Amino acid sequence: MTQDTTRAIEAWRTILGASRLDTTEATRARYARTTSPRGTRPCAVLYPVSADEVRTIIQVAACHGVVLYPISGGHNWGYGDACAPTEGAAILDLGRMNRIIEINPTLGYAVVEPGVTQGQLHDAVRREAPGFWLDCSAAGPEASVVGNALDRGFGHTPYGDHVRTTCGMEVVLADGRLVRTGFGHFTDARATHVYPYGVGPILDGLFMQSNLGIVTRMGIWLYPEPEAFRFFHIGVNRDSDVAPLVDALRPLRMKGLLNSAVHIGNDLRVLSSMVAYPWEACGGTPPLSPELRRVLRRESGLGAWNVTGSLTGPAAQVRGAGRALRKAAKGLGKVTFVTDLRLRWGQRLLKGLKPLGLGTVLARQLEALEPNYGLLKGEPCTAPLAGAHWRVRDMGKPRPEDPRDTHAGLLWISPVVPLCGEDVLRLLQAVEPLFHAEGFDLLATFTMLNERAMVGILNLAFDRRIKEEVTAADRCYRAVLKRLLALGYPPYRTAPCGMPLLREEGDTFWELTRDIKRALDPKDILARGRYIPPLDQD
Amino acid sequence: MTQDTTRAIEAWRTILGASRLDTTEATRARYARTTSPRGTRPCAVLYPVSADEVRTIIQVAACHGVVLYPISGGHNWGYGDACAPTEGAAILDLGRMNRIIEINPTLGYAVVEPGVTQGQLHDAVRREAPGFWLDCSAAGPEASVVGNALDRGFGHTPYGDHVRTTCGMEVVLADGRLVRTGFGHFTDARATHVYPYGVGPILDGLFMQSNLGIVTRMGIWLYPEPEAFRFFHIGVNRDSDVAPLVDALRPLRMKGLLNSAVHIGNDLRVLSSMVAYPWEACGGTPPLSPELRRVLRRESGLGAWNVTGSLTGPAAQVRGAGRALRKAAKGLGKVTFVTDLRLRWGQRLLKGLKPLGLGTVLARQLEALEPNYGLLKGEPCTAPLAGAHWRVRDMGKPRPEDPRDTHAGLLWISPVVPLCGEDVLRLLQAVEPLFHAEGFDLLATFTMLNERAMVGILNLAFDRRIKEEVTAADRCYRAVLKRLLALGYPPYRTAPCGMPLLREEGDTFWELTRDIKRALDPKDILARGRYIPPLDQD
Repeated sequence: MTQDTTRAIEAWRTILGASRLDTTEATRARYARTTSPRGTRPCAVLYPVSADEVRTIIQVAACHGVVLYPISGGHNWGYGDACAPTEGAAILDLGRMNRIIEINPTLGYAVVEPGVTQGQLHDAVRREAPGFWLDCSAAGPEASVVGNALDRGFGHTPYGDHVRTTCGMEVVLADGRLVRTGFGHFTDARATHVYPYGVGPILDGLFMQSNLGIVTRMGIWLYPEPEAFRFFHIGVNRDSDVAPLVDALRPLRMKGLLNSAVHIGNDLRVLSSMVAYPWEACGGTPPLSPELRRVLRRESGLGAWNVTGSLTGPAAQVRGAGRALRKAAKGLGKVTFVTDLRLRWGQRLLKGLKPLGLGTVLARQLEALEPNYGLLKGEPCTAPLAGAHWRVRDMGKPRPEDPRDTHAGLLWISPVVPLCGEDVLRLLQAVEPLFHAEGFDLLATFTMLNERAMVGILNLAFDRRIKEEVTAADRCYRAVLKRLLALGYPPYRTAPCGMPLLREEGDTFWELTRDIKRALDPKDILARGRYIPPLDQD
Repeated sequence: MTQDTTRAIEAWRTILGASRLDTTEATRARYARTTSPRGTRPCAVLYPVSADEVRTIIQVAACHGVVLYPISGGHNWGYGDACAPTEGAAILDLGRMNRIIEINPTLGYAVVEPGVTQGQLHDAVRREAPGFWLDCSAAGPEASVVGNALDRGFGHTPYGDHVRTTCGMEVVLADGRLVRTGFGHFTDARATHVYPYGVGPILDGLFMQSNLGIVTRMGIWLYPEPEAFRFFHIGVNRDSDVAPLVDALRPLRMKGLLNSAVHIGNDLRVLSSMVAYPWEACGGTPPLSPELRRVLRRESGLGAWNVTGSLTGPAAQVRGAGRALRKAAKGLGKVTFVTDLRLRWGQRLLKGLKPLGLGTVLARQLEALEPNYGLLKGEPCTAPLAGAHWRVRDMGKPRPEDPRDTHAGLLWISPVVPLCGEDVLRLLQAVEPLFHAEGFDLLATFTMLNERAMVGILNLAFDRRIKEEVTAADRCYRAVLKRLLALGYPPYRTAPCGMPLLREEGDTFWELTRDIKRALDPKDILARGRYIPPLDQD
């Protein structure tokens, strides 16, 4: 530990007291745990409870030149967890700033601090604004609403694009100044959390996927509960039929008939959340053969591709959208609609079948459906994350919520593609061999986040206890990311290990972000290296 | 003219040739014309045709410290027109950079240069992407698509919020560097114009309502033509009924049953686009009495408040929304639906009535409806601007498209209010006396731009030839803006004369914008004083 760090810690201890500053070996090791190939170990962990404390803390950091890395929940799974890009940073854990400042049941918004979790806000919304849903990301009930939105995580209802539903931020800058965006900096402004742009330049985007400030408060819009809700599943049997299906669904998504974030997952991605890796069946040598994949699919009643989404709105609209959906999918996949009622029937039926040793396929199908079903109704759930443990040897059940508890390795590579079948195929054909070459299966999903684009998520799951597998995952990650960039599909988000790969020499975009960084944080003490290139690379 | 300016002009002449640099008295006077109380006169007008020329021009400006003020169409009516905030700036008229780079009929977007007008793009979209509409602002067919969007002008279809439909910018910075936002800075990125955020911080907002760069290219999303379209008008007879009506419409807007930008105009605002100011009837002394207003209303078949909007989507949805709308407006106003067919009938009926000396009210009603009807179908039109001439004495017909041709004075004050009736009343009650005190009528509209907020536009129309009226308008403008800020309703946009009023000493928001400005444009040569406070105020 350098002298500067020691001094900073002393100053912080004065501010926070001994109980809210932790430099113990155990805590530092806990925050260093990661699902990435490599983590970083912090010098200390700080637990402020107010924006004022954050302001003082960051001034101390600037004074001593110690890097401060803010986290909200630290649940940035697959994208670096709670780890700073640099070794020896002080972690600013905002988890105790967990007040829900306001829930407005008339205008449908909430204002929260960064420590507020999806589960906490979901429950509060249910209580205090019963006509609204919180749109949740798949990161689980313990994930921070603010932290996830700032890294541009997305949800699944029509409010899935959180950049569009974030409204009015309070931000602490690297020099300790506190700034309010939108109309928030005008005294008693009444539209701060209902009109996002204010007057003058829009600064909110500066504080997403960056290191230019610490968001200490944020408004978020709630989705008004629709009159009707219908979940759908389309099972696509032929692998290549994903392309014509995407093309057939595009007009529906664009015209708003499909208004949720439609999710398209391949067989293995869905399986990975349900079953352990079939080590025995594949003779211990991944990837799985096409034949084995077909068997696994059949056993679980899955398609090569599995499309899920919801139709929401007035009942007549939902009925019409249902008809349009069936028509679009004709000849490509089987459309199944699920309502609350049908889901309960299925569960009841299953209870009857189980003692007779029947209903395994139905059970698996229900298991596959339920997490997405909940997410589409704005309910946080842990299931999508279960896939993180896919390659962990000797996995028991139940799987722990935190993938780090099983040494699960997980990297998400998330290219954005236009909403066109040909782009999906082009991408898959290019990257699947790269996964196979390193002994990994390609677990893939594509989510129609807006009317024109999809976010692909390629899961790279590995066992962190097996050194060769970690090395292979690292190599595979780099190869895939490089290939995606060459093909014109950069990712929408990345783990710290991917950030340097996005920066090409002389790219004026990154130069501009550094100019702004230099103006606001000349010592580069705030989350150094997070998306924006470090300043010392001059 | 300073020596620096002379030198800069010489250098620019070398770059552009004599034909694309204009320093004549006539041209400078033409660009100095304004509808504001005061304009500013430029030292020269430059007409580049490419981003490369813009880069060289701005480097010259920086070298000689001459302020450069970029305009696209210069049609920023009511908000300062083509005038720079400072005297003697060089106007960079981007009107000749008017190429439509791409129209994508599959993914529904266009990529355009700043000189492309609404009319030009509307026609091209009709030709090349017939299944889509361009969402147009009310600024007329000659207004620039890019310029209007950058100042956050809005349209009226469900794509009315252009911040949400702008995707992928090319920007020239003050030092001549060229930056592409979103994914645009990655080689051959395929999602540049379909996914707006890219990876890393979102910088697009920095270039709206600011002076941090010159946007030389921009992607804009097109609205997919709906299966059904139904225009509606609600006439509200009692003045105060606007409040319960807003509250009754809010749930419909929030749930997407009302998905267009619902427009609520008072009697005078609608009248101002149709008739000349009734100087005689009011005895030459405005404002108009409540009695006279009632007479004028009756003659034109208008309500105290007039709500227009459209229902779009699948036919069943539109029918359902229509029923919901009638239910919501019950007891508050009369709902009339207009379809293409009914509009044609009305026009035909009118033709038959006219020779009989009948149909005046119908004619006025149609006249009042038509412009909004077109805008709701994405058709640019000049009619809304006709109200600019309202207070001009001896106005003939037809009114010229450019309000400066009749010495029309026009200032728009545009507070944002939450979508709540009580806020509308509170605002109106506070500002109407301020208008009356200076001899002006309150012409007001409120537009439901998103699901939670409305942009109010208060028109301050005056005759620029009458000195006392200009002075009164100036005083009124300041008094109203000040009052709105005190009430918590800052404007979403402003003319240069309003900008200093928004800046309070020690407001860290404006400080932050200045920090960024200082980093990117230390000499403050780009559009000095535009929204961001001038740097010399240190």
